[in-house]
Amino acid sequence: MSTTTNSITTVVGDYLAAWNARDAETRRALVQRAFSDDATYVDPHRAGAGHDALDAMIATAQEGLPGHHVEPNDDVDAHNDRVRFSWTLVGPDGAIAVGRDFAIVGSDGRLRDVTGFVDPVA
Amino acid sequence: MSTTTNSITTVVGDYLAAWNARDAETRRALVQRAFSDDATYVDPHRAGAGHDALDAMIATAQEGLPGHHVEPNDDVDAHNDRVRFSWTLVGPDGAIAVGRDFAIVGSDGRLRDVTGFVDPVA
Repeated sequence: MSTTTNSITTVVGDYLAAWNARDAETRRALVQRAFSDDATYVDPHRAGAGHDALDAMIATAQEGLPGHHVEPNDDVDAHNDRVRFSWTLVGPDGAIAVGRDFAIVGSDGRLRDVTGFVDPVA
Repeated sequence: MSTTTNSITTVVGDYLAAWNARDAETRRALVQRAFSDDATYVDPHRAGAGHDALDAMIATAQEGLPGHHVEPNDDVDAHNDRVRFSWTLVGPDGAIAVGRDFAIVGSDGRLRDVTGFVDPVA
């Protein structure tokens, strides 16, 4: 695994950890580590731009899904300044959806433009 | 299916048809229909920006894969200004790879920023 791949794997790990972090300070720190300052996010249900909005967006999503968390699927695949990876949304009764995220990576190595798609559990 | 979905499905169809079009005039017309004027494309093996470069990039890819074509997998999934879809690369002996493309759609409805990823055949 190249240094670049290690680095983007760490950033994706911070990103997914942010979605799981229900402590405000921890979540905010992870948002800052995962997203470029001017980063944008969009999926079918929500959107945000900049750390403040992204942090608030994730907090709102967490409030709507008590008892849920995301699990990385360990399939980070990067080339050039692009990356894709997936994760599983797990609720109290088990896996309920698979998220497939695509991102453009900023020159600072953090995620600059993230798009989320959702698939049913296989 | 919404008008928007119909429209992006047509654009994706033109895009995949461009990869199959080995007649220069036909390919160029499809490139113009599929890509915004300032569009960019990047995958692990090639990149291009603007119609001239994208047309030349596709022609070079075709020359490297004689007897191959791509088949749409009819799974266009769009939200906001984002779209994903996949296709199968078929050679003389059958399917050899699955491409998964992600794109940002321009305000003109054509593809503005396309990223290609490749998976093994399932």
